[in-house]
Amino acid sequence: MHPVDLIIKKRDGAALSAAEIQMFVDGVSQGSWPDYQVSAMLMALFIRGMSDEETSALTLAMAASGRPLDLTGLPGVKVDKHSTGGVGDTTTLVLAPLVAACGVQVVKMSGRGLGFTGGTIDKLESIPGFQAAIDEERALQLARANGLVIMAQTDNLTPADKKLYALRDVTGTVDSIPLIAASIMSKKIAAGADAIVLDVKCGSGAFMKDLASARQLAQTMVRIGKHTGRVVTAVISSMDQPLGCQIGNTLEVAEAIQVLKGRQGGDLLDICLILGAEMLVAGGAAADTGTARIRLGQALADGSGLDKLRALIEGQQGDSRVVDDPLRLPQPSCRRTWAAPRSGYLTAMDTAGLGHVFVALGGGRLSKSDSIDVTAGLVMQARLGQNIVAGEPLVCLQGQNQAKVDQAHDALEALFTIETEAKPVRPLILDVIR
Amino acid sequence: MHPVDLIIKKRDGAALSAAEIQMFVDGVSQGSWPDYQVSAMLMALFIRGMSDEETSALTLAMAASGRPLDLTGLPGVKVDKHSTGGVGDTTTLVLAPLVAACGVQVVKMSGRGLGFTGGTIDKLESIPGFQAAIDEERALQLARANGLVIMAQTDNLTPADKKLYALRDVTGTVDSIPLIAASIMSKKIAAGADAIVLDVKCGSGAFMKDLASARQLAQTMVRIGKHTGRVVTAVISSMDQPLGCQIGNTLEVAEAIQVLKGRQGGDLLDICLILGAEMLVAGGAAADTGTARIRLGQALADGSGLDKLRALIEGQQGDSRVVDDPLRLPQPSCRRTWAAPRSGYLTAMDTAGLGHVFVALGGGRLSKSDSIDVTAGLVMQARLGQNIVAGEPLVCLQGQNQAKVDQAHDALEALFTIETEAKPVRPLILDVIR
Repeated sequence: MHPVDLIIKKRDGAALSAAEIQMFVDGVSQGSWPDYQVSAMLMALFIRGMSDEETSALTLAMAASGRPLDLTGLPGVKVDKHSTGGVGDTTTLVLAPLVAACGVQVVKMSGRGLGFTGGTIDKLESIPGFQAAIDEERALQLARANGLVIMAQTDNLTPADKKLYALRDVTGTVDSIPLIAASIMSKKIAAGADAIVLDVKCGSGAFMKDLASARQLAQTMVRIGKHTGRVVTAVISSMDQPLGCQIGNTLEVAEAIQVLKGRQGGDLLDICLILGAEMLVAGGAAADTGTARIRLGQALADGSGLDKLRALIEGQQGDSRVVDDPLRLPQPSCRRTWAAPRSGYLTAMDTAGLGHVFVALGGGRLSKSDSIDVTAGLVMQARLGQNIVAGEPLVCLQGQNQAKVDQAHDALEALFTIETEAKPVRPLILDVIR
Repeated sequence: MHPVDLIIKKRDGAALSAAEIQMFVDGVSQGSWPDYQVSAMLMALFIRGMSDEETSALTLAMAASGRPLDLTGLPGVKVDKHSTGGVGDTTTLVLAPLVAACGVQVVKMSGRGLGFTGGTIDKLESIPGFQAAIDEERALQLARANGLVIMAQTDNLTPADKKLYALRDVTGTVDSIPLIAASIMSKKIAAGADAIVLDVKCGSGAFMKDLASARQLAQTMVRIGKHTGRVVTAVISSMDQPLGCQIGNTLEVAEAIQVLKGRQGGDLLDICLILGAEMLVAGGAAADTGTARIRLGQALADGSGLDKLRALIEGQQGDSRVVDDPLRLPQPSCRRTWAAPRSGYLTAMDTAGLGHVFVALGGGRLSKSDSIDVTAGLVMQARLGQNIVAGEPLVCLQGQNQAKVDQAHDALEALFTIETEAKPVRPLILDVIR
């Protein structure tokens, strides 16, 4: 079958068979489909939609398009976690050590930040000496020794997904639930996951702005799991405000350490316990989420979670002394506080806007080749629903560039809504889909 | 507005403004939109459809994308005719001389054949010496002297249409009524037409297989005419069988000469009189189609139509002696007759199949760079509805290559349906839309 015939089939609304989707993905990987045919197919897939069978076939074909990570040499169920991306989302740095401390091996590939969302690899690399670019052999060694590895996604993990994403970005075909779901799931499957716990973010700081589309994405990924023989649980959580109190690379490392030391509760810890409980159950380390929550609480209380973080940093050549002395992390040279312009209730935040301020401060990237200021970021002093008083400090900005800090300061007012009447705040967890 | 934003707008089903369509066409002409963005837009246009305003804006933008033919120096209404393409469709060679003989100037750009349909320029170039590649200045001279010019479409007439067509061909976006309509109309407008008479073919030998889609295409082009200030009439005619009795380049020239000499009636002459009458009325040379038919009949009877053909050939360096002695046209070296395999009524022909046989004989092209055998072709001895007797010759094949003639011979049986019961045959003219 020629590429044009496959495109026409999808254009006219028919479902493609698994073999046809494989032909498409092979054409993308091998470059035998020129970009203009791939983009025509992407637009047809976008507008006509995809069945679960098609989405699952696309997932598996993309997962097999490169060199998957082979974790079959490790014992037990391999459990991975994925967040669809948010602001101040320090989850992995808290969750992975806690879960590993409870006996579930975590071999995790993460990405760098792009756009308004941060990336776990950027955060870890802000620790002096930390090496994220490690190969499969070293990853397996570290997993056996410590039960915990967080590595940068290898270039050749899912090349078909990479090419398709690059084309979607420039052809208006990004916001397709099946294409997003297949992209995420293909990377997790290629990274060796048997079970996947998803954190689907929803709200002003997430790609999915409304609950309906977040739920649709979560359900699609859970169904892909069914079709591809992976256990998938999706938690839908609010991104109406930054998850943690700090947004920034060194800032989020420092905050994760505080949480693992048991010194900070709140939404960040809560979601780590909820996602962690799902991971423990999926990994066979607990019979139910109730038992799992208790085990995670113990790992927090007895410091074994913090020890896992320390071992992770050490294993990957980082300076693990930052765990006990966070001032060993790179420090900003400039700081400026932004104060509440008036009194009232904090009823809304433009959370993606805060992410953009973080990028503008130099902490994030607009394009993949941008270099970043790891110290740049925002420390938030208020949460939604809080009653605040005019002049009270709400955000502390920091970084290496005073001009950027000053610009960021002036951009903040538009991002906060302070009203005389309080408004209800959505709970952190909006739904769990199994 | 960025290309991606325009693509997304159309992807989501909104109508593009004339200015936005102009941006798209400029991006195509200037190459600032990469092919993958153009093809994503084409697929969105294909699936979402286009309003009359959008289709008209696309037509005008493509018509202005290159160097239009400037006929404003010629007096009177410039009337053009276009056929959507068929098999054995010798119309232009009969119609244009007749109309010119009645005093309506015809300055016509035509194309070469591609796929199963023939092209007027190929037919004319089969006349020894005939020059179809003439420039605007020479075309105006000839128009003033003879009132009739048939020239090859210049390379730079509508470059945006050319690029879009090339991409549509490889991205499964050919069969879109608005895109087809805009492509046809843009070329006619760029070729200087004030009034356009369309021959929309419908049936087994046409691109539009059914009457509903032929009518939709015709109506779309008539509405584009309204929006762009051109008088457009569309005749929908049957292509259930080849229009004339001969399919081939020299064969169709010879058949046109026979018709202009008044020696052959039938569907080919009938449609020329119908289309010609519309052209005479549009060109102001007759008050109504009844009067126009009488004038055309006179031009046929008094030989003035034939004289115009002679003058056309002479004016463009062809050997006009072919008009009086068709044996001066290149002659085939091989011939073979195919006889009716059984008796009965001829109830159906695969007319596109006959066109493909013509291509396989060497008469047509599969790709633009193919060279052709001008003598290759088919002489048809039967028409639909006819009662035929087993062993009676039905098709005479000819060309320069015996092996191809033999192969074509063996391919014919599958293209004819001979049944014991007669079936009704559709009339030639299925509808006229003004």
